[in-house]
Amino acid sequence: MTAPHIDRDRLWQSLMDMARIGATADGGSNRQALSQEDAQARALLLEWCAPLGLKLEQDAIGNMFLRRPGSDPAARAVAFGSHLDTVPTGGRFDGIVGVLSGLEVMRALHAAGMATRAPLELVNWTNEEGSRFRPAMMGSRVHAGDMGLEATLAITDDRGVSVAEALKQSGLAGPLAPSPRGWACWLEAHIEQGPVMEASNTDIGIVVGTMHARYFQITVTGEPSHVGPTTMDRRRDSLAATAEAILAVERIGRAAEPGGRASATWIENFPNARGAVPAITRLHADVRHDEAATAIEMEAALRQALAEIAAVRQVAIEVDHYTSFGPVAFDQTLANVLRRRAEARQFTIRDMIAAAGHDSVLVAQLCPSAMLFVPSVAGITHNPSEYSTPEQIARGAQVLLDAVLELAG
Amino acid sequence: MTAPHIDRDRLWQSLMDMARIGATADGGSNRQALSQEDAQARALLLEWCAPLGLKLEQDAIGNMFLRRPGSDPAARAVAFGSHLDTVPTGGRFDGIVGVLSGLEVMRALHAAGMATRAPLELVNWTNEEGSRFRPAMMGSRVHAGDMGLEATLAITDDRGVSVAEALKQSGLAGPLAPSPRGWACWLEAHIEQGPVMEASNTDIGIVVGTMHARYFQITVTGEPSHVGPTTMDRRRDSLAATAEAILAVERIGRAAEPGGRASATWIENFPNARGAVPAITRLHADVRHDEAATAIEMEAALRQALAEIAAVRQVAIEVDHYTSFGPVAFDQTLANVLRRRAEARQFTIRDMIAAAGHDSVLVAQLCPSAMLFVPSVAGITHNPSEYSTPEQIARGAQVLLDAVLELAG
Repeated sequence: MTAPHIDRDRLWQSLMDMARIGATADGGSNRQALSQEDAQARALLLEWCAPLGLKLEQDAIGNMFLRRPGSDPAARAVAFGSHLDTVPTGGRFDGIVGVLSGLEVMRALHAAGMATRAPLELVNWTNEEGSRFRPAMMGSRVHAGDMGLEATLAITDDRGVSVAEALKQSGLAGPLAPSPRGWACWLEAHIEQGPVMEASNTDIGIVVGTMHARYFQITVTGEPSHVGPTTMDRRRDSLAATAEAILAVERIGRAAEPGGRASATWIENFPNARGAVPAITRLHADVRHDEAATAIEMEAALRQALAEIAAVRQVAIEVDHYTSFGPVAFDQTLANVLRRRAEARQFTIRDMIAAAGHDSVLVAQLCPSAMLFVPSVAGITHNPSEYSTPEQIARGAQVLLDAVLELAG
Repeated sequence: MTAPHIDRDRLWQSLMDMARIGATADGGSNRQALSQEDAQARALLLEWCAPLGLKLEQDAIGNMFLRRPGSDPAARAVAFGSHLDTVPTGGRFDGIVGVLSGLEVMRALHAAGMATRAPLELVNWTNEEGSRFRPAMMGSRVHAGDMGLEATLAITDDRGVSVAEALKQSGLAGPLAPSPRGWACWLEAHIEQGPVMEASNTDIGIVVGTMHARYFQITVTGEPSHVGPTTMDRRRDSLAATAEAILAVERIGRAAEPGGRASATWIENFPNARGAVPAITRLHADVRHDEAATAIEMEAALRQALAEIAAVRQVAIEVDHYTSFGPVAFDQTLANVLRRRAEARQFTIRDMIAAAGHDSVLVAQLCPSAMLFVPSVAGITHNPSEYSTPEQIARGAQVLLDAVLELAG
């Protein structure tokens, strides 16, 4: 039996092979949750797992658990993974690095013929991105009991297709009732999605916690009228009011720098007809900050700004705070394992706060959890140009492997 | 033979019967061009026309010409009509009043057993509203040679369905090549769509011309990035830039009052995903003014504002000025016929400028054309609450009948 080792080129080749599914002309990936591309990506992962003897268990929201038995049947599993879905303008690494680094760990153990005491589980979570079906981190939310299965299956996309229908069409629902699986611990490798590690020449980011983020659906209701004869003073234009809301979100984000940010990302306008003054406009926005209290103050500032817009423009504005994530402090003991293992490899490390949501936020409610980051070149992500080097990614996989060996015995 | 007369209640009943097709819960109509509802509306019109002996001729863009023969086979036709399509938040009168007042003229002549010297043509133009397929006044544009048939058939809606496909699905394409029909003159009755006539107690508006309107598709291109880790200063957010553009349009419209206005009505955002800073946003806007030169100045102000937004935000903004209408001065001799006929009935009259586009703008390029307005209660249109009284509408139909009798001999 040889010592297990990370094969940088094999890992890179798998990332490139996966990126072909939903590849976009500009070099990125568009592989939205529960699409045909998502189904193809999962099939490819299964194809790769088959020779490793991993056993698939899949739950009713589509989360995939690929289990490798341990030598101690009573031991609780060490679990790791991330997600294979992308945003529409996605890159090749966000999420995928975590799943395929986990696959590389499994491959390394298999090639070395090594058994661990505790079982291992490689996980691909459903709909981490939340692009087509909100909210994000849907699969891990349902797994953790943060959202009910029935209510989640009824959520619809912008065209009225439900999660249940999309699961059926893509063939991705499994037989298991989503529920916690009694893991000993959880690890997730991910790209940084920001410029800090590259700028500070850091190999491995030890993610100690996340920001607090608050998500809103804002509905502005004005009055339909005709663009031709309706003088400006007689209009109650929902799109113009929403434009002020978008700029208010941006202003609040700027005022909260550097610890916070705010974003308006999704818009739907009705009747969206060239002859009609807009009557109803919906906007998705979020605010987030390292300090939960500040994020809550940002929400208050947003609500105040929206109330002023509504009063001045005589439109109705409803704010639905439909979900949040964080703040999470990840398990310190587990973070120390990652830290020690990275140091043992002489990698440079740095503590990081995750600004984005991750499935680990949900799993941290269930068992000791930790995340590691690898650098993003130029800090660009959710973009076809998203990039991390083969070496950067292999370092992350190496630390993951070393930590799994320590934790699973 | 009795003298032909307008039956107010019959005309009103036809309007109410037509409004049932595509009726909305709030009392309006949603009968967009080339939809199944549009097809049903046209079938109902044909059902009404059959006992009157009108002969349907239909062209390849779906325009309907319902012809009543004249006693002089060499005489050129007197034509009149409007459109049956609505915006998604439409009412029961905009356009429909013109078609069904024309139908009432045909019914009155038929009931009286009266033949005219010149043939008559009742017209229903395809896609006046331009909600689903832009530009507005599509049928009359193609008829007048303002747009080519092939290029128009290739235009797609927001879901990628082409005009050609929609014509096929709705069964509304006819065999004729769209082209001018050698009419002696053209008349259109329409609701005012504004509050001026009601406020000034005017029965009949004599439309002497139209505003000049200029339509733009504005495309803002930023850079995709991740809402979590991307600090505010590193973003090139196309939606935030578009929000400034929407407010610039509004500001320009307000500065142009009372003779002008400006509107941003339609928006499409990409990737429109809750985790992604918007990368590409498209906006539809228009500027219009009584004075063509001022409308052109408004466009210049808009382009200047957009250039400043692009420079400050480091986004690219393209402006496609894809169509215009007006200014049109309608035929004075024909307007005088309407004026005299209204005065003979002791109706109060007032000269009006049309702020919206109408099919008459296109027909005016081909033959002497005129329009008359009836009042809109509270000036509300493109709205389910759009309303004109049975009496107001009947007065318009009466003037139309009287003018047709004078012009067709």
